[in-house]
Amino acid sequence: MNAEIKVFAPASVGNAAVGFDIMGFALDRPGDEVIVRFSDEPGLRITEITGAGGKLPYDPVKNTAGFSALKLLEHLGEDGRGIEMELHKKMPIGSGLGSSAASAVAGVFAVNELLGRPLKKKDLLPFAMQGEFLASGGMHADNVAPCLLGGLLLVRDHESLDVHRLPVPDGMYAAVIYPQVEVLTKDARSILSDAVPLKKFIQQNANLGAFIIGMYNSDIGLIGRALQDVIIEPQRARLIPHFYEVKETALKAGALGCSISGAGPSIFALAASKQIAENAGEAMKRIFSTAGIGHELFISPINQEGAVKL
Amino acid sequence: MNAEIKVFAPASVGNAAVGFDIMGFALDRPGDEVIVRFSDEPGLRITEITGAGGKLPYDPVKNTAGFSALKLLEHLGEDGRGIEMELHKKMPIGSGLGSSAASAVAGVFAVNELLGRPLKKKDLLPFAMQGEFLASGGMHADNVAPCLLGGLLLVRDHESLDVHRLPVPDGMYAAVIYPQVEVLTKDARSILSDAVPLKKFIQQNANLGAFIIGMYNSDIGLIGRALQDVIIEPQRARLIPHFYEVKETALKAGALGCSISGAGPSIFALAASKQIAENAGEAMKRIFSTAGIGHELFISPINQEGAVKL
Repeated sequence: MNAEIKVFAPASVGNAAVGFDIMGFALDRPGDEVIVRFSDEPGLRITEITGAGGKLPYDPVKNTAGFSALKLLEHLGEDGRGIEMELHKKMPIGSGLGSSAASAVAGVFAVNELLGRPLKKKDLLPFAMQGEFLASGGMHADNVAPCLLGGLLLVRDHESLDVHRLPVPDGMYAAVIYPQVEVLTKDARSILSDAVPLKKFIQQNANLGAFIIGMYNSDIGLIGRALQDVIIEPQRARLIPHFYEVKETALKAGALGCSISGAGPSIFALAASKQIAENAGEAMKRIFSTAGIGHELFISPINQEGAVKL
Repeated sequence: MNAEIKVFAPASVGNAAVGFDIMGFALDRPGDEVIVRFSDEPGLRITEITGAGGKLPYDPVKNTAGFSALKLLEHLGEDGRGIEMELHKKMPIGSGLGSSAASAVAGVFAVNELLGRPLKKKDLLPFAMQGEFLASGGMHADNVAPCLLGGLLLVRDHESLDVHRLPVPDGMYAAVIYPQVEVLTKDARSILSDAVPLKKFIQQNANLGAFIIGMYNSDIGLIGRALQDVIIEPQRARLIPHFYEVKETALKAGALGCSISGAGPSIFALAASKQIAENAGEAMKRIFSTAGIGHELFISPINQEGAVKL
């Protein structure tokens, strides 16, 4: 029996421009850390939370990391087990980078490790989904699945968790910038029209299909032509100050595409190499610096591992 | 210089359930034949049309096969060249099987062969598109492209003809049934809502993505789960008598999916083997036989060659 388990669950980019609610990819960083250990006191307790600015509850039933872990413990008939959990948030909350997904994944993944791995990693997905649901009210796996499993994933169906990994061309990198402005996911949802014009639907469908083909064929040109969100981005862009300037400068710097990460306000750019991602990232930074908006930049390959034990 | 050139251009299944206006695949049969030969009389003349029931014009400017050929001749500066063309329609018109695309492709492909192949096959696509436009009024390549080039194709963009071939699992077959009822393409278009509910858009997007992943991975189960049109089929099904019975019986016979071919009234089923396609085809036939509706059944693999010289 291990004395203590420490795990990391990464940030992720939901939607990935052409896969609204169905596609996402994991980053190497930032991410959340969870530490768990057995305790003599029965039940799961959260004993420490850092990096959340006092925003997250200690009650495990109300805490994303605690809730996903509890659901696993219930499933295993181990909910009486005495466990202490620490949640160290090392990524911004409400950033569009899958913060709640990272906590949900880290919580359940850590407890599964502590118990000697009774379930396989992929079988933790339903429990992590429940943690994500607690935070976001939506049963979407486009952050949770890549956060847990790593990679660029497509979720065909969220109920049956029909999840598929896409190949990613060697050397592909993302530049992700988080401008410190507040966009509430529920606002980002509520401004969306509940109908899509047929023509836009056809165009976006074609782009999604072509993006996937580009990934399979390592066809960088095609990925670049396809990585265009004609439906969601135009509706949400106004929630993010300077969005179109940031996008334009990233594309000028050589990015294949640039769009909103999840519900925003983070913005991601995909690039064919680390160097281009860094160039695009620096260009994006300059826009927010000039505008006097605080921001954080992350340069990362597509993380293929997902949650890991540290 | 060849005395006479005879070519074949195949029928095709547009939309393929989850790729409305952007995806299609070619069949081995039925299809159109065009014969061309040089003549001493300047200009392109259509000298014979068979199998069209008197419905198609002899004026090459008004005839799909003639028009695509004329556009090629103009492009080559050869429009004074004396050429005789025969069009032998060997497939039903207005069937949803890409009849006009087959004629457009056969016309331009035949003339290109007669002239000693000045253009590569794929470069004939814009001319074939113009023939298709003459017939359908729509610039969609989802029939023309597979008819010319063969295969299961995705068209990312119809203007730049950004066309991509998808892999097809070994042994995959289609059963396609044409019930002899009239559905005009323009009616099939006009009944479509010009907006798609956001939820359906997400679902269809997921299905298209998963269908493509299934094709790349030869994942027959995934192809079956993904091959569901939740947007167009429900709107058009009522134009085709007994559609849902036909679909149900095809699925019961083991087909992976079953939907409307193009704008209908033809119905296609995809199957993992020739035997299953035959079983599904026979089951589909029984519905129309019982209902007293004349019909034609075609069992075909995905044709990878497209237009060919006979």
